[in-house]
Amino acid sequence: MRYLSRLFQPVITIPKNATLKNTEITCKSQKLLLECGLIRPTSSGLFAILPLARRALDKLESQIRLCIEEAGAQRVSLPSLTAASLWEKTGRLQAVGPELMKMEDRHGKKYLLAPTHEEALADLFADVGPLSYKQLPLLLYQISNKYRDEHRPKHGMLRAREFSMLDAYGAHDSMDSALQVYETVTEAYQRLFSRLHLQVHRVSAPSGDMGGSVSHEWQLPAAAGEDQLGVCENCQHATLDSGETCTQCGKTVQNVNSIEVGHTFILGTKYSSPLQAHHTPSSGPPEPIIMSCYGIGITRLLAASLEALSSEKSLRWPKPIAPYSICIIGPKASSREWQSHGWDAICRLHDTISHSTEYKNDIVVDDRHNLTIGKRLMMADRMGYPYIVVCGRSTQESPPKYEVYTSDAVSTTSVQLLTLDDLICFIGNGRNDQNKIKTNA
Amino acid sequence: MRYLSRLFQPVITIPKNATLKNTEITCKSQKLLLECGLIRPTSSGLFAILPLARRALDKLESQIRLCIEEAGAQRVSLPSLTAASLWEKTGRLQAVGPELMKMEDRHGKKYLLAPTHEEALADLFADVGPLSYKQLPLLLYQISNKYRDEHRPKHGMLRAREFSMLDAYGAHDSMDSALQVYETVTEAYQRLFSRLHLQVHRVSAPSGDMGGSVSHEWQLPAAAGEDQLGVCENCQHATLDSGETCTQCGKTVQNVNSIEVGHTFILGTKYSSPLQAHHTPSSGPPEPIIMSCYGIGITRLLAASLEALSSEKSLRWPKPIAPYSICIIGPKASSREWQSHGWDAICRLHDTISHSTEYKNDIVVDDRHNLTIGKRLMMADRMGYPYIVVCGRSTQESPPKYEVYTSDAVSTTSVQLLTLDDLICFIGNGRNDQNKIKTNA
Repeated sequence: MRYLSRLFQPVITIPKNATLKNTEITCKSQKLLLECGLIRPTSSGLFAILPLARRALDKLESQIRLCIEEAGAQRVSLPSLTAASLWEKTGRLQAVGPELMKMEDRHGKKYLLAPTHEEALADLFADVGPLSYKQLPLLLYQISNKYRDEHRPKHGMLRAREFSMLDAYGAHDSMDSALQVYETVTEAYQRLFSRLHLQVHRVSAPSGDMGGSVSHEWQLPAAAGEDQLGVCENCQHATLDSGETCTQCGKTVQNVNSIEVGHTFILGTKYSSPLQAHHTPSSGPPEPIIMSCYGIGITRLLAASLEALSSEKSLRWPKPIAPYSICIIGPKASSREWQSHGWDAICRLHDTISHSTEYKNDIVVDDRHNLTIGKRLMMADRMGYPYIVVCGRSTQESPPKYEVYTSDAVSTTSVQLLTLDDLICFIGNGRNDQNKIKTNA
Repeated sequence: MRYLSRLFQPVITIPKNATLKNTEITCKSQKLLLECGLIRPTSSGLFAILPLARRALDKLESQIRLCIEEAGAQRVSLPSLTAASLWEKTGRLQAVGPELMKMEDRHGKKYLLAPTHEEALADLFADVGPLSYKQLPLLLYQISNKYRDEHRPKHGMLRAREFSMLDAYGAHDSMDSALQVYETVTEAYQRLFSRLHLQVHRVSAPSGDMGGSVSHEWQLPAAAGEDQLGVCENCQHATLDSGETCTQCGKTVQNVNSIEVGHTFILGTKYSSPLQAHHTPSSGPPEPIIMSCYGIGITRLLAASLEALSSEKSLRWPKPIAPYSICIIGPKASSREWQSHGWDAICRLHDTISHSTEYKNDIVVDDRHNLTIGKRLMMADRMGYPYIVVCGRSTQESPPKYEVYTSDAVSTTSVQLLTLDDLICFIGNGRNDQNKIKTNA
């Protein structure tokens, strides 16, 4: 059993207009994650990710891995330290400029802390190449920390200097093949955002410094977003332009703030040509590999989803990535309920949920029994656990009943009184099947 | 189904005395991992970890997480970029010196790419502190990349400049409590190495730059090791001294080369005092936290276990971390077996193992049917898959029989002819129960 009293969760209150490590508190994910004890800045744009946020990140990483592996990607890990000489060859050392974190080793060799790995992958392909056409298409991915020396880091984990990324790289022998893989990864992204119940829009985008011919941004509307998105009220078609009518259906476009959570590119040979990453076709001489790349900012997506779903006062998570899915609150230590059965009721509830649902290691028990139920319920609601189960007075009825609070994405909280059997059925089926349950509320 | 032909595994042959990226090939894990296409150097002491090695690392990380979480540790992630000012305060910026990877951000602020996080953790405790005695003991852990600017990186992943580590940190209010947690983590280490079937010795060690009073190294004997270990032939008591008789039982000590795969320390207040990380006791004024720390080099442990278990010619893995547990080899494309049932037999075998054992996503099918069984068997043996199942001529018998090759840690390979039922029973029970199975070999 996991006890809330044992969690390292340094809750604080941040006074208005206060700064932490020279950083202003400018958006709600930043404020709530700090105040609820989930992250802690260590320096400008750098964060310690504390246990509850780390659990959410672990879950998010698993979801992302599942989706990208379903698309056929194989995991690799390249060093964060990339030789600066590779970036000189592609011209990006100059082009990206001061946002690159640079360093020299003890022998004076120049490296950068990679913000992305196109050069490193092209160099790897060159090193083991030429690849045979039989090996292509090839899709490799990483989950690792990336670095960007933002001039002014802000909005907490939305714009940090060290952050976790999924980055995937495709190697292809033709544009057709590249487009096919691009489509497969696009579907994987859509599956991911759909599993997270996030309304992420895919919009055509310029390729910028990355180069290449095809590029899409993946945008999640949220007030704290620094990008502007035009979303058609009728067909949901979204663009980065701020036109007033939809180019697809002619209906009215609404302009909203939005956060870029992912990007997909077909890069062509921008990296493979200068770095000599070749493949051998079934006939003819070696040719430069056509590359594609795919990124999702993992820590940014976590923060962005909180921006999209939370209220000013309470965290709300995509259900699959909440730090714990279920929080159990027992009676106050001095109450009649506590004295008559207290701890036993909590254990029975915990064990039954563990054995009968998918939430075995995903339950936290708020064992701070010196606090009132109301106080703990308020804190649990603020944390946004998808299910909060209270062992209150109704557990003395026959059969015992539990108060079950669910919070949906728009931050309302609803309550039902359920017997243990109904509770298991309710939680086991997920909140979509709510209507099938006989409620006693 | 996972096909070997689709794996990114750039197999190469390294000529004698060849160097790769200015690095000599000096030990067998380095040579075999390179030749089998599992890693690839990108620069001196830096490695691309390719899909098969990445799978092994994923499994090793899971094993480590399981053990340290059983000890009550909570996962956190601190930035790799640690402010150099923290290391100035504890005196380690000077003491560790040129092995530190240092860099400056665009505003001239000094950071280092942390080789370890004692300062960062003490600073975090100070930032959210003083901690209440009720929160202690506290045990936090990370799995992340660490950096050390080795003057001469060597032995491949045994001495790299960027490497994956488990690092755990304890916070305590008394030496007694620190010793208790130290004991708990010691047991977690023992459990881990026992599950990996590795003969790791715990030996008393000087604390060195780390400071503190209690310290143990965790040493795995292997010829490539740079440390010297005295191991008693009788009681297995091990020391870093090279005495000739055991201090515990008086019997003969054998001196062997050995690799340090882990370290455990009680640090006292070396970090908490200068960084003002305090706790409030149940009575009296705040006091410096007593800290402990625990490290396991994850990439190093992977390479070290290969050093300990492999032959010069073939990889051998601790069974729980082999890239795939089972490799299926079908008949050659032109053979009678292939024509009569070929692909169906492979599919039936694959699906039955998937459904009836714990190896559902842990099977690779060598679908290079243009190669002979013998050739593929040789390559699979070299890779060290714990179980190799060949669909050869005997699959035409009634009932069909499969050749099952198992490789134990000392690099011999044995073969049995089993029906599908017996094969499932054999694999399902693990190799220890070998004797219970009726064999037809």
